[in-house]
Amino acid sequence: MTSASTGHGTPAATDTLSYDQAGVNYDLIDPLKVSAQRAAAATASHLLGHGFTEIAASRGESAYVVDVGPFYLASIVECLGSKALVADEMGALTGRSYYDGIAQDTIAMAVNDLITVGATPLVVQAYWAAGGSDWFGDARRAQALVAGWKKACDTCGVAWGGGETPALAGIVEAGRIDLAASCTGLINPKQRLSVGDKLGAGDTIVLLASSGIHANGLSLARKLVERLPGGYLTEIEPGLTYGDALLAPTVLYSPVTEALYKAGITPHYCANITGHGWRKLLRHPGEFTYRINKVPPVTPVLRFIQQHAKQDDREAYSTLNMGAGFALFVPAADARRTVEVAQACGVDAIVAGQVEAGPKQLVIEPIGVTFGNDDLQLR
Amino acid sequence: MTSASTGHGTPAATDTLSYDQAGVNYDLIDPLKVSAQRAAAATASHLLGHGFTEIAASRGESAYVVDVGPFYLASIVECLGSKALVADEMGALTGRSYYDGIAQDTIAMAVNDLITVGATPLVVQAYWAAGGSDWFGDARRAQALVAGWKKACDTCGVAWGGGETPALAGIVEAGRIDLAASCTGLINPKQRLSVGDKLGAGDTIVLLASSGIHANGLSLARKLVERLPGGYLTEIEPGLTYGDALLAPTVLYSPVTEALYKAGITPHYCANITGHGWRKLLRHPGEFTYRINKVPPVTPVLRFIQQHAKQDDREAYSTLNMGAGFALFVPAADARRTVEVAQACGVDAIVAGQVEAGPKQLVIEPIGVTFGNDDLQLR
Repeated sequence: MTSASTGHGTPAATDTLSYDQAGVNYDLIDPLKVSAQRAAAATASHLLGHGFTEIAASRGESAYVVDVGPFYLASIVECLGSKALVADEMGALTGRSYYDGIAQDTIAMAVNDLITVGATPLVVQAYWAAGGSDWFGDARRAQALVAGWKKACDTCGVAWGGGETPALAGIVEAGRIDLAASCTGLINPKQRLSVGDKLGAGDTIVLLASSGIHANGLSLARKLVERLPGGYLTEIEPGLTYGDALLAPTVLYSPVTEALYKAGITPHYCANITGHGWRKLLRHPGEFTYRINKVPPVTPVLRFIQQHAKQDDREAYSTLNMGAGFALFVPAADARRTVEVAQACGVDAIVAGQVEAGPKQLVIEPIGVTFGNDDLQLR
Repeated sequence: MTSASTGHGTPAATDTLSYDQAGVNYDLIDPLKVSAQRAAAATASHLLGHGFTEIAASRGESAYVVDVGPFYLASIVECLGSKALVADEMGALTGRSYYDGIAQDTIAMAVNDLITVGATPLVVQAYWAAGGSDWFGDARRAQALVAGWKKACDTCGVAWGGGETPALAGIVEAGRIDLAASCTGLINPKQRLSVGDKLGAGDTIVLLASSGIHANGLSLARKLVERLPGGYLTEIEPGLTYGDALLAPTVLYSPVTEALYKAGITPHYCANITGHGWRKLLRHPGEFTYRINKVPPVTPVLRFIQQHAKQDDREAYSTLNMGAGFALFVPAADARRTVEVAQACGVDAIVAGQVEAGPKQLVIEPIGVTFGNDDLQLR
C-alpha cells in the first residue's frame, strides 16, 4: 500500500497544531495497512502464471512495477484527499469555481507518484464519485473539472482513457465529491527504472520547487482556519488570501522527468514529497545519510501555516513540503544539468545536498533538524 | 467515460419502482459525461509522442486500450457503487461482516469490465476511502475486506499492487467507505483484442450465469426494502433472507475468459451485463439484430425484486441482469465448447441466441421483449 495523504505528528508544544490534532488517527489505519501489504505481497506469484514477474523493490515505493518483458509496467491509484473541501468553501465565499485546479491536483497525486519509479505516464483514468447526481448539475463547476483534467493531461502528455462518475448518495456526503485518479505507465527503456540499488553515496539531491501546500497537509490547513478571524479570506500577503494560496494547483513534475530522460539523465531514485513532508527523503530502504546544505525558499502559504500553527521547523518540515515538492537523486556529475533541465521546464530547482555513507538519517543543516529512521515508517 | 452503475428507467406503471424513482438523475450527469468524453478523446494524440497509439474502437467500451507495440495495454477504474450500504445494514442486523464478499464485488466491477476487451488482468490497485480513521478500527470488518480482496485476486490470477486507504472525513460519510478498484492488463497476443469489427452476423451469443444482483441495481434494491415489512431479513425462500441474497458476491469471469483462450477460443466481442441490464447486449456500435432464443433461469433474488417492485419483464430486463452476468459473442462453431469451458470453470452458461444482419435491436423471444437502439445511449 502506498501511504495515505497525511503523516504522524511529532510531539507538539502547548498550542501547536499538529496532525494528530487535525483528526487523522494512524493507530487505527496502520494495522489494516500492514495486513493489506502482507496479503498484497503474497499475490505477486500470480504474475508468473502469465510469464511475468514483479519488481519486488517496488513494493513500498510509490507505484507498483511489473516486468512484462520488453519494458516495465507501472500502475497506481491515488486520492486527492480533502483539498476539494477548501475549494467548496472558497467557492461559496468568492463565487469562483476552483475545480480546474482541483483536477490538476488530483492528477498530480497520481502522476507525481508514478514517475518516481522511472515511468512515463501513458493513461489516466478519472474517478469522480459525487454525493448525488446534483453535484454534476452545477455546470460551471463540472465543466471546470473537465477542462482542468484535460489541461493536466495535456501538460503530462497522457491520454485520458475514461473513468467513473458515480452518484453515491449515502456514501459520499451530499454536495461533496471524492476525487481520485489511476495512472498506468511504462518504464521504457528498462534502464529508467529508479527503484532498488541504484542509489549510492555520492549521489546529489536536487529539489524541485512546490507551488504551495500541494494536496497534502490540508487537514491541518483547514483546522487552522478556525484560528483565523478572517478565515479563508485572511490575506497572507497583499492581494493573496489564505484560501487562494492553498488552492494553488500542485506542480506536475512529469514534464521534468521526461525532459531529463531526453537529456540523457537517469535519476537513481526519486521521492515525491507529500504526506510526511521532508521525511519522504528517507523513503529509500537503504542505509544512507542524506545531508542537506541548502533549503529552497519556503512558499508564503507554508510559512504562514507554520507561524499560525506555531510549529517549530522540526514539526513543519516533518509535515509540509516547505517549498520542495519532489526530490531527484542523481549522479553528482548530472546535478547542475538536472537543475537546468528543470528550470527549462519552468520548474525551479536547487542542488540541495548529497547522499553519504552513514546511519539512516536526514540532516537538514540550514535549520539544524535531523530526522532518523524511526521518523518514517512507510513500509 | 465508462458508465456509472445504474440505468435509465423505462416508463413505469403506477406503483412500479423504477430507477428514476430510486434517486439517480441521469439528466444531470449525462451532460458532464458527454463533455468529459469529448475532452478525453482529444488527449489520444499524446500517445503518439511516446511512439504509441490508442485503439480508437475502445473509446466507449468498458476499458481503454493502447497499442504499445508487442501487445495492447488495457486499463480501467471502477466503483463498487452502493452495495456496501447493504452490507452495513445487514452487518448491524446479523453481527456478521460481509466485507469479504464486498471486496470480491469491487474487484469484479473492474476485472469483469477489463476482460471485455480481451485483456488478461495483471494488476489490481485498491481504493478504500473511509469516512474516518475509525472505519478501520473495526478490525474484523477490515480484515474481512483484506481477506476477500486477496482471495478475489487469487481467483483472477492478478497481483495486488497496492492502493490507497485515505480517511476522508467531510467527504465520505462517517461510518461509510467508498470502494473502488483500478485494474491494468495486457491483450497478449494482440489477436485477443475483442473490440471493433470482429463481431458479425452468424456469431453465437453465450450467456454466463450471474450469482444474483451483482453490484448493479442496488439503489433499486435498497429502495424496495421500504416496502418489505421484514426489511432485509425478509425470507425470499426458506432460510435465505433478502439481505443475504443481495450480498452474494459478483461472479469473477476472468477465469472463464482465460480458460477460453487456452482452449483456442477468441470471443469476437464481450459485454459485461451491469447497470443497464440486458440493454448492455446492444453495446457494440455496429448495426446488428441480437436474437435471444433462450433465457437463463432468473436468480431468486432478482425474481423477488421484479415481483415486489412490480416491474414487467421489459423494465426488469432493462435494469437487472436477470440471471445473465456476462455475454460472450463467439464464432458459431465455438459455441458449444464455450459453454463447456465455462462450466468447467464452475460458471453455468447457455447458448442463448445469435447475431443477425438487421436493424440494431435486441429481441428476447422467450419473454416477448424487444429493445431498440434508443434504449441504450452509452457513448
